[in-house]
Amino acid sequence: MTRFDTVIRGGTVATAADVFRADIGIRDGVIAAIADRLGDAERVIDATGRLVLPGGIDAHVHIDQVQAPGLASAGARMADGFLSGTRSAAFGGTTCTLSFAVQHRGASLRAAVEDYHRRAEGNAFLDYSFHLVLADPRPEVLGQELPALIARGHRSLKVYMTYEAMRLSDTQILDVLEVARDQRAVVLVHAENHEIIGWLADRLERRGQTAPRFHATSRPLPVEREATHRALTLGEIAGVPLVIVHVSGAEPLEEIRRARARGVTVIAETCPQYLTLTEQDLDQPDMLGAKVMCSPPPRDTASQAACWRGIEDGTFDLFNSDHAPYRLDGEGKLRAGPNAPFRKVSNGVPGLATRLPILFSEGVVAGRISLPRFVALTAANNAAIYALDRKGRIAVGADADIAIWDPERRVTITNDLLHHEVDYTPWEGMVVTGWPERVLSRGEMIVEQGELRARPGRGRFIEQSVSSAFGPRSWS
Amino acid sequence: MTRFDTVIRGGTVATAADVFRADIGIRDGVIAAIADRLGDAERVIDATGRLVLPGGIDAHVHIDQVQAPGLASAGARMADGFLSGTRSAAFGGTTCTLSFAVQHRGASLRAAVEDYHRRAEGNAFLDYSFHLVLADPRPEVLGQELPALIARGHRSLKVYMTYEAMRLSDTQILDVLEVARDQRAVVLVHAENHEIIGWLADRLERRGQTAPRFHATSRPLPVEREATHRALTLGEIAGVPLVIVHVSGAEPLEEIRRARARGVTVIAETCPQYLTLTEQDLDQPDMLGAKVMCSPPPRDTASQAACWRGIEDGTFDLFNSDHAPYRLDGEGKLRAGPNAPFRKVSNGVPGLATRLPILFSEGVVAGRISLPRFVALTAANNAAIYALDRKGRIAVGADADIAIWDPERRVTITNDLLHHEVDYTPWEGMVVTGWPERVLSRGEMIVEQGELRARPGRGRFIEQSVSSAFGPRSWS
Amino acid sequence: MTRFDTVIRGGTVATAADVFRADIGIRDGVIAAIADRLGDAERVIDATGRLVLPGGIDAHVHIDQVQAPGLASAGARMADGFLSGTRSAAFGGTTCTLSFAVQHRGASLRAAVEDYHRRAEGNAFLDYSFHLVLADPRPEVLGQELPALIARGHRSLKVYMTYEAMRLSDTQILDVLEVARDQRAVVLVHAENHEIIGWLADRLERRGQTAPRFHATSRPLPVEREATHRALTLGEIAGVPLVIVHVSGAEPLEEIRRARARGVTVIAETCPQYLTLTEQDLDQPDMLGAKVMCSPPPRDTASQAACWRGIEDGTFDLFNSDHAPYRLDGEGKLRAGPNAPFRKVSNGVPGLATRLPILFSEGVVAGRISLPRFVALTAANNAAIYALDRKGRIAVGADADIAIWDPERRVTITNDLLHHEVDYTPWEGMVVTGWPERVLSRGEMIVEQGELRARPGRGRFIEQSVSSAFGPRSWS
Amino acid sequence: MTRFDTVIRGGTVATAADVFRADIGIRDGVIAAIADRLGDAERVIDATGRLVLPGGIDAHVHIDQVQAPGLASAGARMADGFLSGTRSAAFGGTTCTLSFAVQHRGASLRAAVEDYHRRAEGNAFLDYSFHLVLADPRPEVLGQELPALIARGHRSLKVYMTYEAMRLSDTQILDVLEVARDQRAVVLVHAENHEIIGWLADRLERRGQTAPRFHATSRPLPVEREATHRALTLGEIAGVPLVIVHVSGAEPLEEIRRARARGVTVIAETCPQYLTLTEQDLDQPDMLGAKVMCSPPPRDTASQAACWRGIEDGTFDLFNSDHAPYRLDGEGKLRAGPNAPFRKVSNGVPGLATRLPILFSEGVVAGRISLPRFVALTAANNAAIYALDRKGRIAVGADADIAIWDPERRVTITNDLLHHEVDYTPWEGMVVTGWPERVLSRGEMIVEQGELRARPGRGRFIEQSVSSAFGPRSWS
Ligand SMILES: [Zn+2]
Ligand SMILES: [Zn+2]
Ligand SMILES: [Zn+2]
Ligand SMILES: [Zn+2]
Ligand SMILES: [Zn+2]
Ligand SMILES: [Zn+2]
Ligand SMILES: [Zn+2]
Ligand SMILES: [Zn+2]
Repeated sequence: MTRFDTVIRGGTVATAADVFRADIGIRDGVIAAIADRLGDAERVIDATGRLVLPGGIDAHVHIDQVQAPGLASAGARMADGFLSGTRSAAFGGTTCTLSFAVQHRGASLRAAVEDYHRRAEGNAFLDYSFHLVLADPRPEVLGQELPALIARGHRSLKVYMTYEAMRLSDTQILDVLEVARDQRAVVLVHAENHEIIGWLADRLERRGQTAPRFHATSRPLPVEREATHRALTLGEIAGVPLVIVHVSGAEPLEEIRRARARGVTVIAETCPQYLTLTEQDLDQPDMLGAKVMCSPPPRDTASQAACWRGIEDGTFDLFNSDHAPYRLDGEGKLRAGPNAPFRKVSNGVPGLATRLPILFSEGVVAGRISLPRFVALTAANNAAIYALDRKGRIAVGADADIAIWDPERRVTITNDLLHHEVDYTPWEGMVVTGWPERVLSRGEMIVEQGELRARPGRGRFIEQSVSSAFGPRSWS
Repeated sequence: MTRFDTVIRGGTVATAADVFRADIGIRDGVIAAIADRLGDAERVIDATGRLVLPGGIDAHVHIDQVQAPGLASAGARMADGFLSGTRSAAFGGTTCTLSFAVQHRGASLRAAVEDYHRRAEGNAFLDYSFHLVLADPRPEVLGQELPALIARGHRSLKVYMTYEAMRLSDTQILDVLEVARDQRAVVLVHAENHEIIGWLADRLERRGQTAPRFHATSRPLPVEREATHRALTLGEIAGVPLVIVHVSGAEPLEEIRRARARGVTVIAETCPQYLTLTEQDLDQPDMLGAKVMCSPPPRDTASQAACWRGIEDGTFDLFNSDHAPYRLDGEGKLRAGPNAPFRKVSNGVPGLATRLPILFSEGVVAGRISLPRFVALTAANNAAIYALDRKGRIAVGADADIAIWDPERRVTITNDLLHHEVDYTPWEGMVVTGWPERVLSRGEMIVEQGELRARPGRGRFIEQSVSSAFGPRSWS
Repeated sequence: MTRFDTVIRGGTVATAADVFRADIGIRDGVIAAIADRLGDAERVIDATGRLVLPGGIDAHVHIDQVQAPGLASAGARMADGFLSGTRSAAFGGTTCTLSFAVQHRGASLRAAVEDYHRRAEGNAFLDYSFHLVLADPRPEVLGQELPALIARGHRSLKVYMTYEAMRLSDTQILDVLEVARDQRAVVLVHAENHEIIGWLADRLERRGQTAPRFHATSRPLPVEREATHRALTLGEIAGVPLVIVHVSGAEPLEEIRRARARGVTVIAETCPQYLTLTEQDLDQPDMLGAKVMCSPPPRDTASQAACWRGIEDGTFDLFNSDHAPYRLDGEGKLRAGPNAPFRKVSNGVPGLATRLPILFSEGVVAGRISLPRFVALTAANNAAIYALDRKGRIAVGADADIAIWDPERRVTITNDLLHHEVDYTPWEGMVVTGWPERVLSRGEMIVEQGELRARPGRGRFIEQSVSSAFGPRSWS
Repeated sequence: MTRFDTVIRGGTVATAADVFRADIGIRDGVIAAIADRLGDAERVIDATGRLVLPGGIDAHVHIDQVQAPGLASAGARMADGFLSGTRSAAFGGTTCTLSFAVQHRGASLRAAVEDYHRRAEGNAFLDYSFHLVLADPRPEVLGQELPALIARGHRSLKVYMTYEAMRLSDTQILDVLEVARDQRAVVLVHAENHEIIGWLADRLERRGQTAPRFHATSRPLPVEREATHRALTLGEIAGVPLVIVHVSGAEPLEEIRRARARGVTVIAETCPQYLTLTEQDLDQPDMLGAKVMCSPPPRDTASQAACWRGIEDGTFDLFNSDHAPYRLDGEGKLRAGPNAPFRKVSNGVPGLATRLPILFSEGVVAGRISLPRFVALTAANNAAIYALDRKGRIAVGADADIAIWDPERRVTITNDLLHHEVDYTPWEGMVVTGWPERVLSRGEMIVEQGELRARPGRGRFIEQSVSSAFGPRSWS
């Protein structure tokens, strides 16, 4: 066995299947050996008493998006681009992000992707890939641009059922699904019924009910249940798997279970906000509730319990942050003024750095889920579904994207620990047990001792292959 | 890195999470290294073009059981003991069995276990563990014998809801579940409503409908649905996880899904017969239908489809054979005569050697399931649920129980390939793709080139720790 | 048109289908005409401003039962026989009762029925019929006694799944169902899992938890859900309709809905206690909780809501009292002593006189149900299911069993208003709107101005024909 | 009792609750008496051996509609107006119709209603009411025209989720529902997902699959399931009851049951075509399949069974014809040519005269449903839901709209028996048992001995009061 560049020695390794003590040998940025005892190397990292996990993949991240006109967030600036976004991710134990290259109506999808590539290049600390948001699936986009992009490894698409400037009609979604089916791209769906939301919001507005908490009133669970069922019907008609992102409660989950029982392939994602926050967190004085305004909104404790059960029993496949980096200021959430009505407040919560510590502490340490399930939800399943073949695994031949956790370290979350550019975190003051101390990307130590040790731009674009949602991979 | 006893070189390794190319280094019977390239060893096995999988665990095996008086099978001889049973298992890619140490009514559980240990010792080719069948959970059994046995690593128990000499009342099951909960033993349940079966069989008998096919008529799906729901209610009341074995169709599966939605922990098993046979296979001339008489009986193609869906979508955790080795002769199935009524024909089908090839061919090769799912269903999940900590995994520190498969080899199943002592197989003539060519147990090659290369008695009893059904394992 | 004996003039008549203003003409105890305006008669009753409803049928009534040895209530005296029972019923607007002729183990069913006939004769103020409780369905009972009784118009049977001296095994229930199917008798089931109750009660007892409130702890909802599902499976196997009596919450209701979706015919009954009381009513000082101890126990407010929804949306067919007349004294509930443990307290609540006013007030006046639905639940459906062809209807040719209600009268329920021999009512102090002021039985005024105007013994036994549960009636 | 104009003597009367022998006395067009024996009258009708039922109400009838531009049926002529439509209805035992006054886009609703009144006046043989179809619910329509029409007794509205010229967006439906809720009008919904149908039809068209049978392919069950769930969500959001018309199979029925379990009020309708036809009836040579093209299309035998179960078990409230009178010629179905692609063939089947005989024969005579259930489904429930207070009942004070049936008469259906102007019936050659021989409308004999005895224009418009869907009616 030839020498290794790096050996991680003495740790407890977890994969999506197993937990065992082993040394990890890394060569040329790749995991080359997993063994009971490896000899010396250029660099030896002592992981005694530590957990050695695949670095997280955060497959639902909004960074450096230019908002389309017509959105609540139009004109609002995202505080995080690739530089600070991937920096924050790395501090939270994540080593790969999937963010969104967004087409605007009337614009070119190809140009949007090229522009987004430029935004990443020279800035990203971590490897990254993109989902393509289709806001205007006109014939030349579906017939020419999209196939060309798919051929270049852009094999995940996202469609919105709400947001004025983004949403597609059922027909448009079917058109996208048809291409996705034929070319084996995986489709993510933001499922909320746009028209119900608008109708309810109009009525709230007329009554002057515009404080942040009415954001939740304007999009109750049936809004999400309806759109989830409709999306799954469209997937059933087109004969193609779907990913339902950010599921927030029992009713949409039941739609997912029913679709599976009909034989439909559905991948389900939830996010930290649906496990830990409720609608009541929106009800704070002085627009502070705007901090936790996201869509779907956090619900109630019964919904939290339903989401936890889905985390525990395998209903959810994916756990991502839906990081949306708006500062609580006039450039961000409050662009429309310090007392903006909820419809004009940008949606979303920041979460890149907190996603893994929250699930580790509330899930693994609290005894709800096993370490392999943690790895599956946060890394391995994202790698399989979004077809990042060398990512999300501790296995021979995989990229050495690794997070070394102290499972016993207690940390009080404060915003400055998170190294993003957002000026708050919804989890300020929360005490978690377990923290990622050292993070390697392709074998390179990028975070250590609370310090960033990498240079911007080292991250590379990762091409996607075919999603496991299309069926078992061939092994040869 | 110190030298290895054995290196498996050049194969494609599958775990319950990953598939990757790697060499495996074995030392002292244990997997010591998984690496891109390992140096030479005492023995080097070329696995180029082959799959390197964890040896199967068959956790539902009847061998060398002395049948209780009052059973249909009372007096019938099981053709396979530990010698031929584990031999057949090994030829089918399995490296560990869990069979049943059966208490009879009025007898001592401890004595039954000691007797069963004696039957295994000196005979088993493979490592093995036991489930304890409780047919008489009287106070001293539950209060003294059982705790002592649990302390010695017998941590899985089985109860029957049918069979005259075995079945427990609801009260007795609750009594067992209470001990299981307090001492963290996992409980398997054979769930069929005994009284309905008897009532229906009486009526069939009166009408002279005693041919093998009426076996199925006497235990229709509602019989299994009822008992499954009742068992799950008993588990819910006692607050303890259950394993429902040999689930045969959609209705009991729905009970399992409903229980999970209520928050009840249920482990679900199915078997090859429910994926590949139907009730019509019971309808053959000359008592040949007796070959496929098992309980629950095979159902119809809709039930097969429901079971396949449960295999594919994760509803089933376990896939085992329910091997029951009765010859079709006067010592076995036809002990009550060549035209015995169905109630007097011993129940069960042989399946130790065919379990894995059938699932590999119909599941993996047919594109229904991935290799990691195959490993989970046939090995890793059995190891976790039945708490065999060193088994069922290809991971550093695990026992080197490994099967090397030729994934492309086409084999026509004939009984002589199976190396059991039963005189038939239900799958005679079935053509499968994929076959386990070489099988290692604790690093020792036991099957190679269609030859057995091990000595009887090399197999060891494996103590069980605490089942993963009781919650996530601690990693430290 | 020939003259009438009685005309009820000017009232608002309700049937199970319609509400309309009409006069009712009665001749020879039978409704002879319903018309916009009838001429004079022997007697004219002014019903202006009043509702003219079919007298209620209470089809679940325990009176003058000799308790079997082995019951909690063994030795306890029922305070009401036919005299006070039918008197109380009449004061509550009920004109027909179905109580239970109970076979004891080892005894003759025929003898039990004859004995029960004797208890009724000379005492009943109202017409009555019996359900036959089978506690010992041995061959001669099922083969000879029962068919003879069915031929004499005893066409409804009851089986218990709990109570030591009464319960039948699944096999016995199937035996009863087979006769019921072949001879078209309808079967009522008390569905609770006996063994779970006993097991839980043992554990409560060991911990000294024997106060009345632990009665509810010993029979939680899953106990009822399990037995309901099992009973419905037995009905499915035997191919015969069932009546599930006293359903107490959402879980057993879901079993009923699921069975119907499978094509099984199920009739569902609930009682006032499940709409108005909760488990907390059992938690009172000084054994006062014993007053509301019944089986199944009252549950919680969510269960009440589920039962109300079933009342409103048609899931429930029948609404009866389950009147069980034990005084709170040493001859009744406290026969085993003033601090008897819950297992030794007789089960049941008195309810003959309060059933209709409670449903009228909380159902009709509160706007939950229509008058026709009230008539269906309390009279017409009982007549159809229990095949009392001339009862429960205001229609030409039907017996003139009529209650004239003041829909606006507010009454505070007190025990002395109820005219039973029980020394309490669970609804003491409840204020209801609507009260039956005058009650006619076969055209004879029996209650008027709060006075009883009939003689004991005027009531007659009513033979049953074939239940509508066996399918639509032929009209010719 | 004063004299009657007409007495129907000696028949068996059925209401939605009861069946009994009685004479019916009619005075001034109203039922004045129901009695065991009524004296003579101007006219005495001998009904010995006959059933006396409420005349049917057909609450889903398309007659004399001017098709909106953009519909497949645009330009196609409806063969039946009020004259032939109500004539055909009367011959089939129906005495009241609810057809549709259709607003076109950009047009006035009030004007559409006035126009439709004019079309009825002078032509209708039967009393009638209208549903108002809203195709353009712009503010002045909802704010002014609709409230004024509601005030004049137009209290049922219909919205379409498909058909290019008719369909409303979710927002528009919510706008309509809001008015309906506030003013207590009941809303009917045609629930199919328009965009899926269009998308599938486009693809069929591209492949040249335009024969009638592809009509069914273009609108599979999930299309109806989706729209049904969405409609019920809109009703849930708006807090208003809905009628889902022409339900065709198990999947939309399940949505209805689920909504009810959530506490949503839903009224469900099915039609003869979903009980008796299948998709295969569309597959006939020479465009003959166009005869049974309707939307939703007939499904398969499993869907028929599901619909029958809903008829039997009470899930369906209403049974109407959805009569749509297009001839199979160049003015009707084939307006776009003798080989028109399915998208250009007018939708609908004629059914006014066959609705009741089919349900009577296949439902009542076949033993599936009782006579009261027949009356409820075909008359009484329509009267309650659509609030025609004097219709649909045999009760004192109700209009004497009565059909006298020979329950044993066997009739082979032929088109000329139906007295409509359509040139075919889908049920040509079907043999039914039971036929309405004499039909009275407000006491006037209009059909007798197969002859029409009334003059056109005698029918009157009936104002609607408040639907029972809004809760129990007050009785005073
Ligand atoms: Zn989103
Ligand atoms: Zn997002
Ligand atoms: Zn078994
Ligand atoms: Zn077995
Ligand atoms: Zn009872
Ligand atoms: Zn009772
Ligand atoms: Zn329609
Ligand atoms: Zn229509």
